[in-house]
Formats: sequence, structure tokens, C-alpha cells
Amino acid sequence: MEYARLFLPTMKETPSDAEVVSHKLMFRAGMIRKVATGIYTYLPLGLRALRKVETIIREEMDGAGAQEILMPMVQPSDLWIESGRWDYYGKELLRLKDRNERGYCLGPTHEEIVTDLVRKEVRSYRDLPLVLYQVQTKFRDEIRPRFGVMRAREFIMKDAYSFDRDDAAALESYEKMYQAYTRIFSRCGLEFKAVEADTGSIGGSASHEFMVLAETGEDLLLSCNRCAYAANMEKAASRLPEADVSETQKEATLEKVHTPGRKHVQEVAEFLKAQPRDLIKTMIFATDKGLVAGLIRGDLEINPLKLKNIFGANFIELAGDEEVRKLTGAEVGFAGPIGLDIPMIADISVAPLRDAICGANETDYHLCHVMTKRDIAAVATGDIRLAKAGERCPRCERGILEEFRGIEVGHIFKLGTKYSDALGAVFLDGNGKEQPCVMGCYGIGVGRTVAAAIEQNHDEHGIIFPVAIAPFQVEILPLQTKKPEVMACARRLYDALRVKGIDVLLDNRDGRPGVKFKDADLIGIPCRVTVGRRFLSDGEVEIKDRKTGEVVEIPEAEAIREIEDRLKALA
Amino acid sequence: MEYARLFLPTMKETPSDAEVVSHKLMFRAGMIRKVATGIYTYLPLGLRALRKVETIIREEMDGAGAQEILMPMVQPSDLWIESGRWDYYGKELLRLKDRNERGYCLGPTHEEIVTDLVRKEVRSYRDLPLVLYQVQTKFRDEIRPRFGVMRAREFIMKDAYSFDRDDAAALESYEKMYQAYTRIFSRCGLEFKAVEADTGSIGGSASHEFMVLAETGEDLLLSCNRCAYAANMEKAASRLPEADVSETQKEATLEKVHTPGRKHVQEVAEFLKAQPRDLIKTMIFATDKGLVAGLIRGDLEINPLKLKNIFGANFIELAGDEEVRKLTGAEVGFAGPIGLDIPMIADISVAPLRDAICGANETDYHLCHVMTKRDIAAVATGDIRLAKAGERCPRCERGILEEFRGIEVGHIFKLGTKYSDALGAVFLDGNGKEQPCVMGCYGIGVGRTVAAAIEQNHDEHGIIFPVAIAPFQVEILPLQTKKPEVMACARRLYDALRVKGIDVLLDNRDGRPGVKFKDADLIGIPCRVTVGRRFLSDGEVEIKDRKTGEVVEIPEAEAIREIEDRLKALA
Repeated sequence: MEYARLFLPTMKETPSDAEVVSHKLMFRAGMIRKVATGIYTYLPLGLRALRKVETIIREEMDGAGAQEILMPMVQPSDLWIESGRWDYYGKELLRLKDRNERGYCLGPTHEEIVTDLVRKEVRSYRDLPLVLYQVQTKFRDEIRPRFGVMRAREFIMKDAYSFDRDDAAALESYEKMYQAYTRIFSRCGLEFKAVEADTGSIGGSASHEFMVLAETGEDLLLSCNRCAYAANMEKAASRLPEADVSETQKEATLEKVHTPGRKHVQEVAEFLKAQPRDLIKTMIFATDKGLVAGLIRGDLEINPLKLKNIFGANFIELAGDEEVRKLTGAEVGFAGPIGLDIPMIADISVAPLRDAICGANETDYHLCHVMTKRDIAAVATGDIRLAKAGERCPRCERGILEEFRGIEVGHIFKLGTKYSDALGAVFLDGNGKEQPCVMGCYGIGVGRTVAAAIEQNHDEHGIIFPVAIAPFQVEILPLQTKKPEVMACARRLYDALRVKGIDVLLDNRDGRPGVKFKDADLIGIPCRVTVGRRFLSDGEVEIKDRKTGEVVEIPEAEAIREIEDRLKALA
Repeated sequence: MEYARLFLPTMKETPSDAEVVSHKLMFRAGMIRKVATGIYTYLPLGLRALRKVETIIREEMDGAGAQEILMPMVQPSDLWIESGRWDYYGKELLRLKDRNERGYCLGPTHEEIVTDLVRKEVRSYRDLPLVLYQVQTKFRDEIRPRFGVMRAREFIMKDAYSFDRDDAAALESYEKMYQAYTRIFSRCGLEFKAVEADTGSIGGSASHEFMVLAETGEDLLLSCNRCAYAANMEKAASRLPEADVSETQKEATLEKVHTPGRKHVQEVAEFLKAQPRDLIKTMIFATDKGLVAGLIRGDLEINPLKLKNIFGANFIELAGDEEVRKLTGAEVGFAGPIGLDIPMIADISVAPLRDAICGANETDYHLCHVMTKRDIAAVATGDIRLAKAGERCPRCERGILEEFRGIEVGHIFKLGTKYSDALGAVFLDGNGKEQPCVMGCYGIGVGRTVAAAIEQNHDEHGIIFPVAIAPFQVEILPLQTKKPEVMACARRLYDALRVKGIDVLLDNRDGRPGVKFKDADLIGIPCRVTVGRRFLSDGEVEIKDRKTGEVVEIPEAEAIREIEDRLKALA
């Protein structure tokens, strides 16, 4: 492509709403333009990167035996009512009515549509396994769209759905997809981790997120420094940090003590001359199933998502002050499990406590000498603790959890029969008996992958594209565009590279070298070839690696070979 | 691809709502499935055909200097209000509100979005010409979606937009696109005609439709048998059929005559012993600009679209009986131009009349001895006549118009400055003066092209795909799947063809040959290779041309060469 004819409006300024570097750089490099909040147009350079990612995805999905289809963006409400998600999905689901007042939504995901397709077409276990995928436009009416295409409302997603005859087969499909995802993000040239994750509004029994590692990532993840264990912070577990149990822990009668104005763990502990680990912290949460409580040792934190999952709730948030007052009859800070009449879960850390302190459900009072086994025996125990970096790995013996920041680019789910049960997607097994398909679903944010690649690969001058997803692999930059010899050399290199199937951009614009160099750095083409004075004097061209900045000057005749070698090394 | 693993649910039955052959065959051949009215999922076979068309489109658009971008499906209402189409577009424009009650629509076309992009990015005449295109999902809430993907509500369109510095440059862009379209549909293997057409709700000064010829086509078109003239019936002109002007046509005083119950041209003519060509027919139409009338010689027909365009109206339909009664004070059938106080246009055919008959605007009365020049001199004259097959070409001397039926697959428009004026898309010309971009827009219905190809190419057994857009070019059909020699030969051919980059389907299903042959005919793969008894006895395979039915039996060793030759000949 010739730069002079390319619609590539680069900019010095960044939009005022651009908070993250990928958004700034995608705008400045003329890859995207905003149409409305969370709605973007991809310009040629952005679309080229997008298509490279799509091509890699398609090759690996096809290679894994998945078949491409194309489902609609506008989906009838009936199917969502049937699956039970019409009411549940919330405002992210953009609902609309057609001219005949029939209800539809813009598809945020396609479980309903694909399960409807399969229930109509699949009859027998011989039709399984079946993995269908599409690369398609989704819409989610995010409450706070931001970060450019990273959290857009309209976005391109590759979504795949697997249908299997039983759990074992479904696990095989899941693992095939896990492997395909690993190959996809590797081929894209990205550093990433697959982590165990919460299943959210998609549901199912287990899931993995594929996280591109970047300091600017929104997600926190914990990863063992010795074994393969890695999990999203929302899901992560760790071994319970041992509290060297106080010698003083003894069995004694419950006692109500006056703790005027002491609401926080630290304050209460100091006031009562105890350690935070001697307290039982009682946190009240509001969920769609009503108020619930979580109990945890005072030196640890609750992970609300774990609590939510145990209760099978759809959402969870800290209860408001007024709700807490009404429930406990006390100010916030004095809640305790004894006498509290709502569903509760005690973290594993609470079970061994024999002489603990908790709120008395009375303003300015706590209870001392609480013994879990005796005083709150009826409360179920579970892991509701927020794991932290530095804690010990829950899987292996000696590993320590390390913290990373990441950007979720893929998410795979073991769905089980959630949707096939709801919609009646059944098949006849070998004995002629109807069975529900066991499903999985598998998403990749295509635009988000491009943005994440930029978050991971950039410097102060601009983008540093991995070769595999670069809009162009090579940029040829002739400096003295008025000199016919220079332009002839540039054109020879351009033609020779194109013949070899290499995507090459020829900056044939008139203009100052400084502007061209700045643009080249900004748009981040991995390999830059400059034809300038050195060519006029010695017949040499300069080849520069965008990432390392390494420069070689070599005779024109050797340039193509050198470029090919470099691209291979970078790939 | 191996058939046994392909998600290709063929059917014997057709859906009850399938009115046209392409809809029936696309359903039966497992290419599409309905999700809701006018909303479809493309299954693997359908998507493969779609992608082939898309690839041809992209190659030709890129070759013509157009640049691919990707605009959103959800469009903010602001831009449509700015262009003036928010109110005008009618119910086909599906409007919706987001969670913050902001107005949006599902894009039925993208003039607003692309003009907004260009007004923000294009500064100078040096940035022009600019042609941007996308292949993207559109939504039009059709009042009567039907014919499967041919008139769907959600559909895939290639839409392009050109921006030029002046009319001459815009015409060049238009002609480049015209040529690109001609190459696209030729490469798709389709018989088609480009015809002059009405500009409809897109607007602009002129347009051409690309029509795939098919007996089942919805559109009528007229095409000269001698020159290049061709036009959609809605737009077509012809030379005025000469009415051997009656000798009796004389100048005489107006006279009101009693014509009890005679409403129709034929009745009135007979009653008054005249010819239909001696009458002036007065038709009243309702438009968004109020009632209007068209006058035409009694033996000819009015083309309402021509009338609509002359009046610059957005819609037109015959006025209701009540409206006519109120306006004329008479029953329908007795309207006439004299004394009628609404905007009127007289067809060219009316101008020479000197002794004509017209309605008297009084029930059961007509006026005789009407002389156009004298009695209705104030009425403007224009071509509002419906042209018909058999009439003489308006362009050349000796040509006669022939009638064809066609399916519109592409439509290109000279837009002028309609949108650039409305949205302020200006550039600085060579003198530093602001000028509006002169625009064109260019659409292709991608799914519709596949459907039209099927309307044009099928027989009673199924689809006959043109090679260029066939989901697979070759199908290999081993008959005795239990015989290892047969399967080994089939597999050898399969592998050899794949290595050559030919899309090949191997029907490795167990099952009766009859079923396999039927499916092969139904899905319409151009070249079928059967490996059967003849291979076991003589080492020969059978190659059959789906279109001609021609069969050759040749040794396996010669098969690949023969298939390649055939595909080349078919392309």
C-alpha cells in the first residue's frame, strides 16, 4: 500500500476521554475513530490489525475442528425468555421493538441462538461432538464504556459453542479449545496467562480467562511461581495464612463488653488488647436472594464473588448502612453472627477459633470468648477469602502466589446443560434415550486483543506491533522523495517484498523526514527500511527493528533477504 | 472438508413461508436457517458461498482504489437528525434507546456515519479522491420481509462511499465503481445487466442498478436490443408511440357531454365513438407534498415514480376514492384537468392533442373538443409515461425495448452534495476556498447475490453453483465406503486437490449412494467425482459436470488434470 493514498489520519493530540495507552495510540495512529459512546469505526490501519487476528483465530478454530457459521445480531426475545436470561441479564442487554412491537435484543452473546439451532438440527449422538463458531458484532450496553475498543459497547467477538454427549466428551472439547486459544494468542505474539475465573452471567461450572499481561491491565491475577496454578483475583484461592494461634485462646463463657465507638477490626483489637486475627469479622451483603452474611477472621478479607457463588446469587454488593442498621439493630461496625437471622457462610479461617471477638448486634458492644464450634456451630463453612500475592499456592507444596495485571482477551466456559436443559437441546444416545447436550462456550474479543497487544507492546513513541498482527510488516521510508534514484530503490524493495506476500507500506508522501519517522514510530510497523543519503553515497539502505531500535545498514541487494530473516526471527 | 464432520443438515421439505426457489434451496441445502422473521443464521455451506462473494468484492474494490473500513451497526440519532433523514426514513429505520435514553438506530445504510468521518478527517483537495467501503451487517425493518435472505431484515452489505472535489472527478469515481461492479458480477459467474434506476430514499441525481437476470426476478427491466440502453421499469423511457393522429382532430369549442356510468377510458371512447388515444386520462395521486395530478393520453399509462421525482416528493400512491371525490366534486372516473386546482404535469403525449376528451369533474360528464394548447396551457409538460416492451428505444434510432426480469444485487448512486451539504463535509480547494465534497455511494447485497445466483442457476434437483462462488468446487463421492481401495482413491484425490488449493468436499458418510447423489445435486457443487464399481474393475473414476450433466470416465491418474481443466473452463 502506498502511504500517500492510504486513509491514515495520524494525530498528535489524544481525545480527552482516552484513559489508557491503547486507546490513545489507536486514535493517534489513525486506527479508530469514535462515533458515539463506546461505538467506533475502524479505519484501514485498525481494520488490517483486526483482520490479522481474525485470520489467526479462524485458522486455529478450523484446525481444532470447529465450523464457522454466522448468527444474527438482532435476536428475538422469545429465546431469551425461554432461557430465563431476559429478566436476569439487566441493562447491558439492549432491548428493542420492531415495527410490529415484537421484542428483540441486540445480541451480547449467542448461547440462546446457537442452542435453538442445535435443538432443531441435531438428532443423534452421531451428530456430536459439534463445535460452531462465528466472528460477529456484539452489543453490550455497558454502564461505563471506556478504554476505546477495549470496553466498547459494539464490538467484534469470536464466539464458539461446543455440544457433546457427556461430561467427559465436553471436557475434551473444552481442552481442545484451551489448546486452540493458547495457540491463537501465542501466534498473535502476546505474553499471556490462562487463569481460572468466575463464570459470571454466562454461567456454568468452571471457566478460564486468557489474560494478556500488561502493567496497565484492569484485572488482577495470581499465579504460582512454581506450578501451573493461576487464577483471576476474583476466583483465586491460597493456603490459609497460619495465625500463630495465641496461647491464650481458651474456652470461656461468652461475655458482652462495651467498645464505645470502636467499629474497625484494628480499633476493636487494640481496645480489647487482642490481635486482629482474634476477631470474627461479619460482613453483610445485599444479593438478589436477599441479605446474606460472610464471616472471616479479622486479619483477612472476604471475596464477595466467592460468597455470591456459594449462595447461587446473580449479583452481590455490600449492604447499605440503613439495611445493616435495620437488620442488626446496631450501627455499622457492630454486626456479629450470634442472633443474626440471615443466611451466613463462615470462611475456613473462622472454624478453629476458640476465644474470638465479634460484634454484639448492639451499638458500642462486642462479644468476647466466642467459640466457633460452640456459638456459631450452625453456620456453614466455605472458602470465601480473598487470596493475596505472597500467600502460598493452594495446589503445590512450596509455591508462592505472585500478582500480575492482565487484560482479559478470551474466556472459555464449561456450561454443562444450563442452556440445553432450558431450551431442550437433546439428542438420542446409543440406547435411543434422550439426553441433553453438554455444552461449552468460548469467546475472544477481537478488537480487545488488538488493544491488549498495544497495551503490552508500546513505548513513548508509539505502538510496537507484534509481526503477526501488524497492519503492515514492513514500512519503506524513502527520505529524498525528489531524487529518482531513491524512489526507484524504494519502489524496487516495495515490489520485491509484495511479490513475496509481505504486507508492506511505502511512505511515498512528500514531506519532512522528521514527520515520516514520527509517523512510522507511532503506527509501529515492526521493520522499517530507510532509503536516504547513505543509499546515494554507498548504495546502502538502513533496516531498523521497531522494538529493539537495532539498526543495520546493508547494500540494497541484501536487503530483501535480511528483512525476511528478521521477520522470521520476530514471528 | 469431510462431509461426515460437516454441519450440513440437508432437508427434503421446504419451509411453508418459502415463496421463491432460492429460499427453498438455501434452506434445503442447509445453507441458512431462520431465527425470526427476516433474520437468518448462515450455516457453514451458506457462509462459504457468502465469503467467496465477499472475497471477490474486496479484491475488486481494493483494485479500484477503495479502502476498507468498518463502521458500526448502531448509529446515533444526532447524525440522522442532522442529515434530515431521521423523520423522513419511515419505519424501515429501526430506532432504539440505550440505557441512558439516548436515541440510536440500526444502520440501514451509512451515508451519515461516513460523511461525519470524512468531515472530521478530510481537510484539503489533496486528500481526495477518497473511496471508503465496508462489508457489514445492516438492518432494515422491512414491512414484508420475504424470499429468505433475498429480502431479509438483517443482511450483509458491501457499501462504498466516494468523495471527490468536483462533479467531473465524482463521475470518474462513479465510472470506476461501475467497472468494478461489472467485474465483480462477471467474476461471480452471473448473467446481469446494469440499468438506469430511480434513486429512492438514498437520493442523488442518477443511479444504476445491477440486475442478475432470472425469470423469477421481482424487478422488470427494459433493455434495447440494439444499443446499451437499459433501465428499471420504474425509470425506463421510450419513444412516444405515435398515435396515427385522427384526421378528425380539429379545433372546436369545449362541450360538456353526458356519459352516464362511463368511467374507464375504453368505455368513454366507445360511448363517444372515439379512440382511447383521443382521451386525456387524469390520475390523482397522494404524495407527501399533497395531492397532485398526472395527465396522459388515454392509450398510455402513467409511471407514478416519474411523477414523484418531478414533484420532488418522497412517496406517491394513487389517491383514495374519497380524496378524489372531495377534490373534484365527482365520482372517480370523471376527473379532468380543467378547473382542477392542484399541481399537475401533462405527459409529452398530451401536448399535441387538439380535439380530446377529458373528465368534467362532474359525475357522469366529460368534456369534448379539449385542445391542450388552449385549454390546459398552464400545465407543465414532462415524461411521466410508463415505457413498455416493444416500444422504441429512447437512445438509438432503430432499437426496440425488450423486457427482462431481474434481481437487484447492486445499486450505485451519484449523490452529489446532498449529504456533504447537510453535514458540512467540506475541503479546501486549490484556492483555499471551502467546497462541499461531491459524493457517490455504492451498494452490493452480499447474501442477495448468493440467492440471486441460485435463482439464476438451478434445476429441479437443486442448486448449480457458478464455480467462483461455490462453497466447494469439487465433491468426491466414494460409493462403496466399506471398500478400502475405494476410500483410498477418494482420499488420494481429496488430498491432491487440496494441495492445489481447490476447495473440495469428500462425502465420506456411510449411507446409500442414492442419498449421496441427491445431496450432491442439491448442494450444487460444480464438479462431482464418483469413485465406484468402475474404479474397482478398471481403475476409472467418473467426473460429472453439475450444470451440463456431462460425464466422463477416466483413469484415476488423469483425474486431477481433468478436474483442473474443467474448473478453468467453468470459471
